[in-house]
This record gives sequence, C-alpha cells and structure tokens, in this order.
Amino acid sequence: MRRTFLSIEGGEGAGKSTVIAAIVQALSDRGRDVVATREPGGTAAGEAIRALLLDPARTLAPETELLLMFAARAQLVREVILPALDRGAAVVTDRFTDASFAYQGGGRGIDAGRIAELERWAAGIKPDLTFLLDVGVDEGLARARSRGGEPDRIERERGDFFERVRGTYLARAAAEPARFRVIDASQSADAVVTAVRAALNDWLDRE
Amino acid sequence: MRRTFLSIEGGEGAGKSTVIAAIVQALSDRGRDVVATREPGGTAAGEAIRALLLDPARTLAPETELLLMFAARAQLVREVILPALDRGAAVVTDRFTDASFAYQGGGRGIDAGRIAELERWAAGIKPDLTFLLDVGVDEGLARARSRGGEPDRIERERGDFFERVRGTYLARAAAEPARFRVIDASQSADAVVTAVRAALNDWLDRE
Repeated sequence: MRRTFLSIEGGEGAGKSTVIAAIVQALSDRGRDVVATREPGGTAAGEAIRALLLDPARTLAPETELLLMFAARAQLVREVILPALDRGAAVVTDRFTDASFAYQGGGRGIDAGRIAELERWAAGIKPDLTFLLDVGVDEGLARARSRGGEPDRIERERGDFFERVRGTYLARAAAEPARFRVIDASQSADAVVTAVRAALNDWLDRE
Repeated sequence: MRRTFLSIEGGEGAGKSTVIAAIVQALSDRGRDVVATREPGGTAAGEAIRALLLDPARTLAPETELLLMFAARAQLVREVILPALDRGAAVVTDRFTDASFAYQGGGRGIDAGRIAELERWAAGIKPDLTFLLDVGVDEGLARARSRGGEPDRIERERGDFFERVRGTYLARAAAEPARFRVIDASQSADAVVTAVRAALNDWLDRE
C-alpha cells in the first residue's frame, strides 16, 4: 500500500474544510483508516501554540511566527503523523510546510532557504500529494468574511500580503508538479470536490 | 561606551537570581541604565511560551522544545534586547543561547550545528560577557529542592540529564574563554557575588 500523506493548501476562503471532508470520505470508502489533522495545531501543545499564533492581540516578529509554526509542526509530525503512517493509516492535513513557505516566506519575507532548513530537520517529511485550492485573493477574502466571526491575527493582513502568499503557492506547485494538484477553487463547491476526487482517485489507482 | 549585553548561565540551584540582582546594582552604581530580563520569557509572547515549556503536564518532542525556546528568544531579542542596547542601556539576561546548547543540545541530544544555525538567524546576537555559575549537580538540585514548590517540566529530568547540561556549559566556557567567566557557585552567596562583581568591574574597566 502506497504511503498516503496528503496536505490541503490554499489561502483564506479557498474551501479547504469542504475538500478535506470529501477526501476523508473518499479514503474511508476505499476502506482506508484515515487521520485528519490541521496546522498549526493537531496536538495539545500545537493547539496551545495555535492560540498564541492567531490571537489578534499578540505582537510576533516574523521569525517568532516561523519558529512557532515549526514548533507546532515538529510536535504534530512526531505525535500524530508518523505514528499514523507507520500503522498504515492515511493522513490528511489542513496545511503543512508549503504554508510556511507561502505565509512566512512569501507573506512575511523570510528567506526560503531558512524555511527549507527547518523543513529538513524539524518536519523531516513531505506530503506525498498536495492539493492547492487556488482562488483570487479578493474572492477568497470576500468568502472568508461572509463566514462571519472575528478575523484572526493573520487574516487581518492586507491584500498584498495574500497576493504574495498566493504567488508563492503557485510557484511551489509549478516547481513540484508531481506532488501538487492545483484546483481552481473559484468554481462551485461541488465542482471543486469533483475535481479533487478525480485527481485523488487517479493518484490512488496508480499505487 | 562598550556594548554591555550580559548573560548569566547555570544549572538548577546555581544562585542566578542573587547574582543578577548584584550585577544590576553594580551597573546602576556606575550610572548605567539597566534592563534585566529572563529566558524563556521577557515579552508577552515569550511568557506565554514559557508557560507552555515549563508545564509538567505537557508532552514536547526535543525539537519542539528547541523551537519554542528560539521562538521566545527571537521575540525577546527584537522586542527588548536590541532596542535597549541601541539606546545605550546595559542588558542582563537570566540565560540566553548557551542554555539551548546546554539543555536542548547536551541534555536532549540535539545536534549543536542545528542550534548554531538557529543562533545565527533567530537570535543573531551573542552576549558580550557570560557568567557561568558552576555547581555540582547533586548540590544544585538539593538547593533547588530546598526552595520548595513544584518542579517544572525540565526540573523533573534525571541527574544524568543535568550532568550533560553541566558538561556542555563547561565545554562552551573552555572554548570561548574571552566571553565566559566561570564562577565556583559552590561557595557562599557572598563569595559568589564578590567574585562576580570583581570580574564584572574588571571587564567594565577595560572599555
């Protein structure tokens, strides 16, 4: 059985939750044991770090933000992801290291080489397949706002921040076409889910 | 005026607090503006990270612990240490990067090269003068216990952990004799303070 470590990436309002639910269902339908998790978070320590990262009242230097993201990730990999993969379960994560390249690299301007260094030893694992849900920044933000609720510390950034995030995601997908599937997330939720399911089944059937 | 960034290092029960108070007093007596801080902590974000790090109920992988230490440090450097040094104040910190080499390197076994890499970009600054308060592990732990209170997550480690911490501290002091002053902290508190004051005045008078 092929190792199945999937990450779902995308900006605000891209519809990640709907897609993740569909992927978990599709894997379950194939009889796979599935672990779904999210970043930052997914462990007790990680969720405490998440609260710190997203609190709109916090002042965090870009380097602090990057290190906290990788602290949560290091814990998630060791406590959840590797044990699940070791027992043959599929793992589906709402964001992984690509998000640090996009948000802390593209968004905050931290050198990609530093992030790659952390990726090597603090994460130490890359997803086997990554779905990038791509939607225009204005449309994504409008959707995120329509969900209501207070925007978190990162959601409060300006439009050009999210343009850099989107650009970095697309550049990473272009550089690693074997791992990435870019999905046009401006389509209806049904169309997005259909596209993701088709790409996932195609990938799984190649094992 | 010479840049005055001082760190005080040492294991459990080495008497850091007494020494820090004496150093702050000695600098104030010379008319210096002094900022005293501590690690992990010293900022709002850093104190929240400290609570996470020291909570005995937390499970943290060594890599998570290291990244959290540097997240707190990155924030402290940018929010407190650099601004204070820039306006000419002296900064005295209860632990700095040497503690990560000692605890997460020597104690937890993380490769020193990784810690040095983080030191370069996440901290980006080294103390000008470091006092290592050295005391035997058994004596230090007995003193720490006599203060009462619940031991924190790191204080709960076993004796051989602290032996490795002590050995790493001493090796670092031997490798950087110009920066380190090793103080025999098995002496009385008065004798320790006298030794620290003499070494500090000697260093300050060389400016």
